[in-house]
Amino acid sequence: MRLRNIPWAQDMLDDYPQYVPVKLDQLKGHWHEEFKNKQPIYLEVGSGKGQFIYTMAQTYPQINFIAMELQTSVAVRILEKLVAQPLSNLRLINQDGGEISDFFAPGEIARIYLNFSDPWPKKRHAKRRLTSTHFLDQYEQVLQADGEIHFKTDNQGLFEYSLASMSQYGMAFKQVWLDLHQSDYPNNIMTEYEEKFSAKGHPIYRLEAYYPRKEASNK
Amino acid sequence: MRLRNIPWAQDMLDDYPQYVPVKLDQLKGHWHEEFKNKQPIYLEVGSGKGQFIYTMAQTYPQINFIAMELQTSVAVRILEKLVAQPLSNLRLINQDGGEISDFFAPGEIARIYLNFSDPWPKKRHAKRRLTSTHFLDQYEQVLQADGEIHFKTDNQGLFEYSLASMSQYGMAFKQVWLDLHQSDYPNNIMTEYEEKFSAKGHPIYRLEAYYPRKEASNK
Repeated sequence: MRLRNIPWAQDMLDDYPQYVPVKLDQLKGHWHEEFKNKQPIYLEVGSGKGQFIYTMAQTYPQINFIAMELQTSVAVRILEKLVAQPLSNLRLINQDGGEISDFFAPGEIARIYLNFSDPWPKKRHAKRRLTSTHFLDQYEQVLQADGEIHFKTDNQGLFEYSLASMSQYGMAFKQVWLDLHQSDYPNNIMTEYEEKFSAKGHPIYRLEAYYPRKEASNK
Repeated sequence: MRLRNIPWAQDMLDDYPQYVPVKLDQLKGHWHEEFKNKQPIYLEVGSGKGQFIYTMAQTYPQINFIAMELQTSVAVRILEKLVAQPLSNLRLINQDGGEISDFFAPGEIARIYLNFSDPWPKKRHAKRRLTSTHFLDQYEQVLQADGEIHFKTDNQGLFEYSLASMSQYGMAFKQVWLDLHQSDYPNNIMTEYEEKFSAKGHPIYRLEAYYPRKEASNK
């Protein structure tokens, strides 16, 4: 994503602790207290400007959502949406997704969304892809036993890589879509990028995956 | 595939036991004796008219190949190729792929090819798909520990189903191709159907899969 630096972004994020929680290390294991209810928590890693997660939070008030976005100048766009039209079930974290087990206790998250993540097409950058082993291990740590990863992308190479990487890690696919917008998948909520890209007629890939090992160990 | 009934097909198959082995039940566990060497054995389930497997056998004389095709009037086309230009490393079995453990001993097969299998698109026919649980179990029984399934199809629904079915069975994908003919995959050998279909510009899907459980149990 092309980044425009926004000098006041950090100050604005700091100014809204009700949407952008501070002292994250103390929140680990206490997110249900932060949301003041027992609703399941869905996390998006790499939220961009937040159209997807904000619309999800609007559409599903019975779920709590956390948007994670490292780029301060991008994350502030999510905050602007929240300030303009507040939602009690959405929080924003301006952090990297690589160490999410620092922020969430085991089993604290019910679902993780990865949307149009950076494909890092060069082989030497494969470890930066959000579906590489280290990340899959982090997700497994914080997800509840029947938790799921929902991933979509337009990038063929990243999707091919992810199918191999996730299955080799021991994950299974609940369902796979090779052309989401031509399928009967209901109520797809699009990201900003997805809206622009899919207008060109290229396929959107999607998968829902889970950790059978984790499910089995809880039976 | 549209089938033309060939009245003399069965008689011709019976007439060439050197290519179409008889007494299959006695061959189980003795295929290396049948081939008179210790080369790895690759099996294609559903060979159609055999362009793929025949070309493979021509191209890789250091491998033994077995073509399995249930339809007698189609299987005879493979035999005709063998009669016209004999190959010592290719055999034909005019049998159903559903009970291959009747024909092969555990670990006797090094690789299984599934090419453009019938998609059986109706949900109630899902069990007939060659990547459904029963078949995956049969393949696992006859494959050696590091054996692989190589599967290609133009059918999006069948490929989506197979990614889910195989991963849920506990298989992992070594590699996945979402547009084989636009990839850098070398030396692709096309089936008759693939040649016709890909000329229309639609993608060919391909995957290589293995059984991590099986690999692990042999270490």
